[in-house]
Amino acid sequence: VLVHVNGRLVPEEAAKVSVFDRGFLYGDGLFETLRVYGGRLFLWEEHLVRWSAGAALLGIRPPMGATELKRAAEELLRANGCAEAMLRMHLSRGVGRRGYSPRGAEEPTLVLSVHPVAPRLAGEQKLARVVLSKSRLGAGDPLAAAKHASQLLRVLARAEADAAGADEALLANEAGHILEATSANLFWFDHGVLHTPPLDGSILPGTTRALVIELAGALGIPPRERHVRREGVIGASGAFLTSAGIELLELGELDGQRLARSALFTRLQAAFRGHVYHFARGEDVGQ
Amino acid sequence: VLVHVNGRLVPEEAAKVSVFDRGFLYGDGLFETLRVYGGRLFLWEEHLVRWSAGAALLGIRPPMGATELKRAAEELLRANGCAEAMLRMHLSRGVGRRGYSPRGAEEPTLVLSVHPVAPRLAGEQKLARVVLSKSRLGAGDPLAAAKHASQLLRVLARAEADAAGADEALLANEAGHILEATSANLFWFDHGVLHTPPLDGSILPGTTRALVIELAGALGIPPRERHVRREGVIGASGAFLTSAGIELLELGELDGQRLARSALFTRLQAAFRGHVYHFARGEDVGQ
Repeated sequence: VLVHVNGRLVPEEAAKVSVFDRGFLYGDGLFETLRVYGGRLFLWEEHLVRWSAGAALLGIRPPMGATELKRAAEELLRANGCAEAMLRMHLSRGVGRRGYSPRGAEEPTLVLSVHPVAPRLAGEQKLARVVLSKSRLGAGDPLAAAKHASQLLRVLARAEADAAGADEALLANEAGHILEATSANLFWFDHGVLHTPPLDGSILPGTTRALVIELAGALGIPPRERHVRREGVIGASGAFLTSAGIELLELGELDGQRLARSALFTRLQAAFRGHVYHFARGEDVGQ
Repeated sequence: VLVHVNGRLVPEEAAKVSVFDRGFLYGDGLFETLRVYGGRLFLWEEHLVRWSAGAALLGIRPPMGATELKRAAEELLRANGCAEAMLRMHLSRGVGRRGYSPRGAEEPTLVLSVHPVAPRLAGEQKLARVVLSKSRLGAGDPLAAAKHASQLLRVLARAEADAAGADEALLANEAGHILEATSANLFWFDHGVLHTPPLDGSILPGTTRALVIELAGALGIPPRERHVRREGVIGASGAFLTSAGIELLELGELDGQRLARSALFTRLQAAFRGHVYHFARGEDVGQ
């Protein structure tokens, strides 16, 4: 497997960064994970908008602009012969001085890598099991809407899910509102309406989330942003998660309690798969 | 300069980790920064307690026990001829699968490095200037008391300080209580009493903090844990920061407002310097 590191394609074993890279020292960086269908980068523009906004927030200047970055990503896919894959783009602030101040770190590190599409669930399981993490997201975190690389809280939340034999963990704020899963957005159905927590700066603006809202509208399923607590998800007529990697993943259980299943999910998922089918064939699907 | 990477001493240029190390990808690790006086590791036991507690919280098994780690650190100091220096120990979860789940990452990465003692303040400046960061610390963060490697919030807070021409940034929680600086603990004097925010799991239990409390008690300055807001620091009769790197650093300004100076600070700092003097000469100072 070849990896792109700062403008060069190198074998996986040689893909390294300095131990003084601030990405390693402090999680001082950001990333995007995109789905590749039929060799094409799905929702490229949407991921790039988030990538650029994150870089601006962190004050890191990406070493490549949009066009050059896309060319590098496509070159990596070709070099590795990938048609169905995940593409990961990682930008860190690079080597600087010791200490939190970012001053003096002027050469960011860019890494592009390809990964297999993860099996979405273990074995024959069809519905995802989730737990509500004990960790709480703070309201004053200016980084909540960025896909940044300081993710230890989510790592521990995922470890909670692993320990419970679950597939993902949901994260709530201190008011008890569930905001998202560790690496996916949350949706639920209620009285024929599709709900999801609002984009108020406290959740990640998911690219699949935005597409699902658009597809729901086109199907005549009204999408609405709303806060929800644990009881709200348990009482919903169906719930699912979205991300580039898992696409649309229906939830079967929250903290061991069985969740209802909605026929609307099946319709939405079919619409998503149709969209992807046309995209993978190189047809214009409005991207 | 030689660096210790996973049991080997290598030149700085060769000190590298995989781009798939979870430390780089997700800030999935922890570290300690110790002061070296006269070639000796100051407050070693205290740093090791925090290191071990952090590793347990993160679920990372350090590849070396206490004795072996200290031997490796001392070997690195000797190899680099360091008598007055900072020693940094970094432990990351190592390479695992893509995604937040720590499962499958079984070989942690250990890096030991030496760094010059930072000039505490720019130029002739004697008093530190601090700002109160706009970021707020959440109450539900299980990692608040660990010196972990997901520190982007602190990086941005330090960038705020840099932009304001200040030396450090203070961090408050959503209730407005100031908890600590980005990489130091906060103390202030009020009516002859030494105050500092309580160790309630929301601040880092600083090794210098603990020593200062002990020294204050011995000097007859009663130490007390208490919450404080911005106005409390501004109205105090003196304030200072502590860390292994900056030792005791008196504050001159908060958000541009001049702070009072206390003669008690001078006494406490003299006691600290006396303590360090004896330690550096190899005398038993109860460590």
